[in-house]
Amino acid sequence: MEFELNILGCGSAKPTTRHQPTSQILNVRGKYFLIDCGEGMQTQMQLMGLSMANIGHVFISHNHGDHVFGLPGLIGTMDLLGRTAELHIHAPQQVGELLDFLVRTYYADIGYKVLFHPVDTRQHTLIYEDRSITVHSIPLEHRVPSAGFLFREKPGLPHIRREMIDAFQIPVSQINNIKAGASWTTEDGTVISHERLTTPATPPRSYAYCSDTIYLPELKEILQGVNLLYHEATYFHERALRAEQTRHSTALQAATLARDAGVGQLCIGHFSASIKDETALLREAKSVFPNTVLAKEGLVISI
Amino acid sequence: MEFELNILGCGSAKPTTRHQPTSQILNVRGKYFLIDCGEGMQTQMQLMGLSMANIGHVFISHNHGDHVFGLPGLIGTMDLLGRTAELHIHAPQQVGELLDFLVRTYYADIGYKVLFHPVDTRQHTLIYEDRSITVHSIPLEHRVPSAGFLFREKPGLPHIRREMIDAFQIPVSQINNIKAGASWTTEDGTVISHERLTTPATPPRSYAYCSDTIYLPELKEILQGVNLLYHEATYFHERALRAEQTRHSTALQAATLARDAGVGQLCIGHFSASIKDETALLREAKSVFPNTVLAKEGLVISI
Repeated sequence: MEFELNILGCGSAKPTTRHQPTSQILNVRGKYFLIDCGEGMQTQMQLMGLSMANIGHVFISHNHGDHVFGLPGLIGTMDLLGRTAELHIHAPQQVGELLDFLVRTYYADIGYKVLFHPVDTRQHTLIYEDRSITVHSIPLEHRVPSAGFLFREKPGLPHIRREMIDAFQIPVSQINNIKAGASWTTEDGTVISHERLTTPATPPRSYAYCSDTIYLPELKEILQGVNLLYHEATYFHERALRAEQTRHSTALQAATLARDAGVGQLCIGHFSASIKDETALLREAKSVFPNTVLAKEGLVISI
Repeated sequence: MEFELNILGCGSAKPTTRHQPTSQILNVRGKYFLIDCGEGMQTQMQLMGLSMANIGHVFISHNHGDHVFGLPGLIGTMDLLGRTAELHIHAPQQVGELLDFLVRTYYADIGYKVLFHPVDTRQHTLIYEDRSITVHSIPLEHRVPSAGFLFREKPGLPHIRREMIDAFQIPVSQINNIKAGASWTTEDGTVISHERLTTPATPPRSYAYCSDTIYLPELKEILQGVNLLYHEATYFHERALRAEQTRHSTALQAATLARDAGVGQLCIGHFSASIKDETALLREAKSVFPNTVLAKEGLVISI
């Protein structure tokens, strides 16, 4: 089942011809979770063949233009596409003002509801849950209130060993019980344990998004063991002072956090327009955490 | 001297991979006049090698998202680029609310002023003037108040015939007088007429932008003889009823207006996302007005 990250944009505020502003789609079994919404993201979705109708929930890290200015157009396009399903937007309080303005001024008559769910950027807390995933906020620190997001699959049920079901002629009606933990007693009274009848559930997958933020070493607790971490790496580490001043991170810092949290893979993005050679940025990160990749428009990472 | 139209986007509201929403730059001797400002226009400017610093005045036809949602990002980028010069935005009253919101919410601290000049969409009137051009509003009719814009070069001075200046040994100090209309009297009292000393001024060039609007045959008066007319042609004429309902025009209508106004050239744009084959739209227009071209992202028309 899909659990894959689609990068729509991974630049920073100043536009370049190489990158679009920040936006990504986490595709969880066909349900799209939009993370940040930079200008131009609709074009990127279309180029990647991703349908806007599949977006149900939007998670916005902070109220800077390069992370939100795709929302005005997206809300309108969804209406043009005939949307009737509610659109849920989870974001720091400040983004609510933008949504209020847009709905009042441009979208009073659209055919669906835009529902705003404020995110407390100081808390690591559950902000969304459905049958298959949970989403927790991650407190970040930037020039304005900013939150990251941790997406975790819920633990699945064990897989039935078809050959055991056949061997003991267990009726189909019992499959769900066995998945849920039951054993099976044969006609002669032999108990076949649940463990013999099943293989373990697929381990739940997880994805963490951290942008924009200074380097926060303490996040290693929250991020412990996630499969994929996207972390901003706006600057080379030689510009660590500039990163500190603008409340951003360096590639080395992103990689240090990835290493200390023991994540599976690191994807770095939010590149400063001043960086012409991102492969050097990648080398810097890999010197600390080898399993790092560069974000890039159009990149899809299956988790 | 440049008087050229640069098409940044010529699609309509529903995004496609073929077109960006409406935006164009009229380059008048290096001064850029931005006409409408759809999402993604910054990327298009960069792809076309056009500098945002050259934009002094922005003209917005109406307050629909596909004509204004590039403004939030553009205002921020101009600040990031270190702008200090005032930015003038001429637009129907409703756009003022967007600018107020943006400046209050995102741009309270930027290093330049955004000045709003409301345009009365019911009047054909002078709304801007500098040393080299005038801009008049064109009353349009759409679902919301909408104005077109007519850019006209001011009449230039006649050109000096260098060989006549040399033949009569006219001092350089007299050149400006002669350009301004003076004749020259030689030492023996012969009057050399202004007309013999000069060739006529280059005829002033003109550009008219009409989008979004229903077909307004009466505009032929205002548009009489303009060098280039950009007119929306959202639909084929077989969908004239749909055009009427949504307050748009057909290709045939745009061409009819171009013919009746005796314009030099017609450029059609604002294509409906439903149109897959724009060459058929072009054929429709050319059947009435042969000197028609299709707008296209990246197209530059020297007027």
